[in-house]
Amino acid sequence: MVKADIGLIGLAVMGQSLVLNMERNNYTVAVYNRSTSKVDKFIQKAGRDKNIIGCYNIEELCNALKQPRKIILMIKADKPVDDTISNLFPFLNSGDIIIDCGNSFFKDSIRRSTELKGKGLSYLGIGISGGKEGALKGPSIMVGGSKKAWQKTKKIFRKIAAKVDGKPCCSYLGPNGVGHYVKMVHNGIEYSDMQLIAEAYFFLKNLLNLTTDELKEIFTNWNIGDLDSYLIQITKNIFSIKDPETEKPIVDIILDSAEQKGTGIWTSQEALEIGVPVPSIAEAVFARSISGQKDQRLKASKLLSGPTPQFSGNRNSLIETTRKALYAAKICSYAQGFSLLRTASKKYKWELKFKDVAAIWRGGCIIRAHFLEQVENAFRQNQGLENLLLDSYFVDIIENSQKDWRYIVTLAIENGIPVPAFSSALAYYDSYRNPFLPANLIQAQRDYFGGHGFERVDKERGEIFHYDKWPAVEDKRQHRKL
Amino acid sequence: MVKADIGLIGLAVMGQSLVLNMERNNYTVAVYNRSTSKVDKFIQKAGRDKNIIGCYNIEELCNALKQPRKIILMIKADKPVDDTISNLFPFLNSGDIIIDCGNSFFKDSIRRSTELKGKGLSYLGIGISGGKEGALKGPSIMVGGSKKAWQKTKKIFRKIAAKVDGKPCCSYLGPNGVGHYVKMVHNGIEYSDMQLIAEAYFFLKNLLNLTTDELKEIFTNWNIGDLDSYLIQITKNIFSIKDPETEKPIVDIILDSAEQKGTGIWTSQEALEIGVPVPSIAEAVFARSISGQKDQRLKASKLLSGPTPQFSGNRNSLIETTRKALYAAKICSYAQGFSLLRTASKKYKWELKFKDVAAIWRGGCIIRAHFLEQVENAFRQNQGLENLLLDSYFVDIIENSQKDWRYIVTLAIENGIPVPAFSSALAYYDSYRNPFLPANLIQAQRDYFGGHGFERVDKERGEIFHYDKWPAVEDKRQHRKL
Repeated sequence: MVKADIGLIGLAVMGQSLVLNMERNNYTVAVYNRSTSKVDKFIQKAGRDKNIIGCYNIEELCNALKQPRKIILMIKADKPVDDTISNLFPFLNSGDIIIDCGNSFFKDSIRRSTELKGKGLSYLGIGISGGKEGALKGPSIMVGGSKKAWQKTKKIFRKIAAKVDGKPCCSYLGPNGVGHYVKMVHNGIEYSDMQLIAEAYFFLKNLLNLTTDELKEIFTNWNIGDLDSYLIQITKNIFSIKDPETEKPIVDIILDSAEQKGTGIWTSQEALEIGVPVPSIAEAVFARSISGQKDQRLKASKLLSGPTPQFSGNRNSLIETTRKALYAAKICSYAQGFSLLRTASKKYKWELKFKDVAAIWRGGCIIRAHFLEQVENAFRQNQGLENLLLDSYFVDIIENSQKDWRYIVTLAIENGIPVPAFSSALAYYDSYRNPFLPANLIQAQRDYFGGHGFERVDKERGEIFHYDKWPAVEDKRQHRKL
Repeated sequence: MVKADIGLIGLAVMGQSLVLNMERNNYTVAVYNRSTSKVDKFIQKAGRDKNIIGCYNIEELCNALKQPRKIILMIKADKPVDDTISNLFPFLNSGDIIIDCGNSFFKDSIRRSTELKGKGLSYLGIGISGGKEGALKGPSIMVGGSKKAWQKTKKIFRKIAAKVDGKPCCSYLGPNGVGHYVKMVHNGIEYSDMQLIAEAYFFLKNLLNLTTDELKEIFTNWNIGDLDSYLIQITKNIFSIKDPETEKPIVDIILDSAEQKGTGIWTSQEALEIGVPVPSIAEAVFARSISGQKDQRLKASKLLSGPTPQFSGNRNSLIETTRKALYAAKICSYAQGFSLLRTASKKYKWELKFKDVAAIWRGGCIIRAHFLEQVENAFRQNQGLENLLLDSYFVDIIENSQKDWRYIVTLAIENGIPVPAFSSALAYYDSYRNPFLPANLIQAQRDYFGGHGFERVDKERGEIFHYDKWPAVEDKRQHRKL
């Protein structure tokens, strides 16, 4: 019997798509799923003529593979991954390669990599983005882990990856965990991208009373030029779809209560942990949570007042102004994401090449966008670039759009239309470009109540001073003798 | 030899203050510090006539205490706490009580509580707030842990706590970890309170070119009425202090680069974890991180442009408008904090009484404020209140100030003055009161690329639908045959 080139465990949507992609690229794939009925169903759906070997237990899967074995895990993060690795272990030989392509937390990948190394096995933690369709036709592939193991597997992954101008969106980025880290940040940026688009939609729809057809036209136009991207394109498509049951625009029958699977949360938590400001990503996560409080919002809407949206200016010019604001805000959100990668790369000693990250994201993944070529250029010219906002291309863009951006945010606020991602990105810009911020007062307060100390503007950085005569504060409501 | 009523380990600022407070309240306190030289120095400073017993090792401390022993840990969170508990263990008897008054992470308190119970020891996790001065004169005390242990210790803590109208700001709030949780949220709110004050200061200073004397006058006025609070009071005091070295206002010689010790980060991370929006707290944390990027900001300020702040309207009216906006934003930030407590109480099964939390915070702690009486009232009237914004008192306040609030935020944005906490609080308000949000589009996108499904506006909640004919998306930059 022919041995398979590679194995895959986990036949949910993404797993199925990856298998079909590899098979189409002339690889024989052995597959296994914990609920084994899925194996049959999948093979039946794929077609019995395909080079796919169905396996009904782990041992069978391991026996079906060429050595050194390459086994992709495409399963739920966390415990299922650890359990599956344990179950695999008795059937593997030294040199076999476990490839976690799921949404694992990067620290788990680092831990697993070390554990498996101790057992003579190789490990790759690979972030895959592109959704169902991307996985099938060509996803974006972010690789971390053993370089040796990568040498033995890269042919397959580069083959199945998305190509931009003929180059695969697939690179080895560094050791332990970096693949899943970059994927995590990709998803964080995806959250803010989606939130920004949603805010632009909501703002224009409410202020101009737009129909779905008009919205479709706007997003069709926006998908040319600066904003040209997968997310704008599917947004445009969404506006053209009618719900089969009611024949209303599908967007109008979907409940405004967003779910999330956790990678946006991880990105925000990790950024908080290592001290990198990513307000636009966090606001996007919080916006989903607030949307989920639908019942409270309905109650609140009857109690809490706000302005009635109205606009009497030029409609087309407002649309163009919104487009420019969206682009500026988007740049700030990417600046935050890359700034997170930069700090992480230093902290975890990854020596991550940011131009490679931008290049991978140009195609295949959910955030793929024309403008990532500019991001790639920026880091190609200067790997040490501290923040995307300091690159001359982006300096110019924001210079030319900041008036529009300020106008859109103030108009939204005046009209009571929430734009948390637009406004937090603007506050980020105004904070970042400001040589002075009011943190001196915060440091004074901290020294006052906690003796935490402060640096001085007229002394060496790093030297800590205290003021030791802050006046005692009487508690007015405290009626007792001391 | 007289045995001590209570012991304390850890003679940093807060520990010293607590000891002096207990001693002044006629308790004999045995003290120990890992660097034993601190024990001598402290006793010398406190005065040899005081009822303080210096101990030079753990055994000595344990021998110096009445039984059941009560031992306060006032040491660095994390490993030091676990280590100290291990070191104590050989010298303790069943029924002795370990009281962690440091800034421990609540999950550690839950774990320790269970571990110690298994060993026959009792555990209390107590949040103490008030800074150095509060700890000395009367802090705010948030208690979680064994109820039985609390019965045996509460007399001491109620005695040393701040009093408001004669009632101690000290309550037993519930089991395992709740004391440290409430303290964590207190600190999260403290972060946003401080950031809001800093933004109001920075906004007025920049727009009106105010001197420190003028700022002092403004904050003196603000400390009467709605904003009457410890943080406003010390801010006012800060503006009156001159740096002894340069004789300039001290606030002007302090570097605008804020530090943080982590509880604001924890609050934001935990809120992300359990799905509660706390954007104003997270923005306050991020604002500190951005302020810390001082060198990058100096560089950025030379490259990135922005408007020059200018204002030609009525100055006094702008100051009053800012005050109203500050109060509205502050209410939203407390609404977020209490909303976090509400979700946590359900999730961890604490049955937390929110009126008790508000009552404790009325005095002694850093966020103590006149307006917490209104918060206490709101929860006293309705323990089930889902969000502070739904209480009629706060509905009215925001009704009366939202025009001012919108004006301040838009004016700040037009003038390029970053006000991330002001604007995120406003976006929170506008999102929360909105019966519709653009999350329908986000759900459509998620179903499009990931098949994640959505609820429908015209069907039962909880039922998940998919659209299965989303159009395929061609990747324009992908030049390969499929």
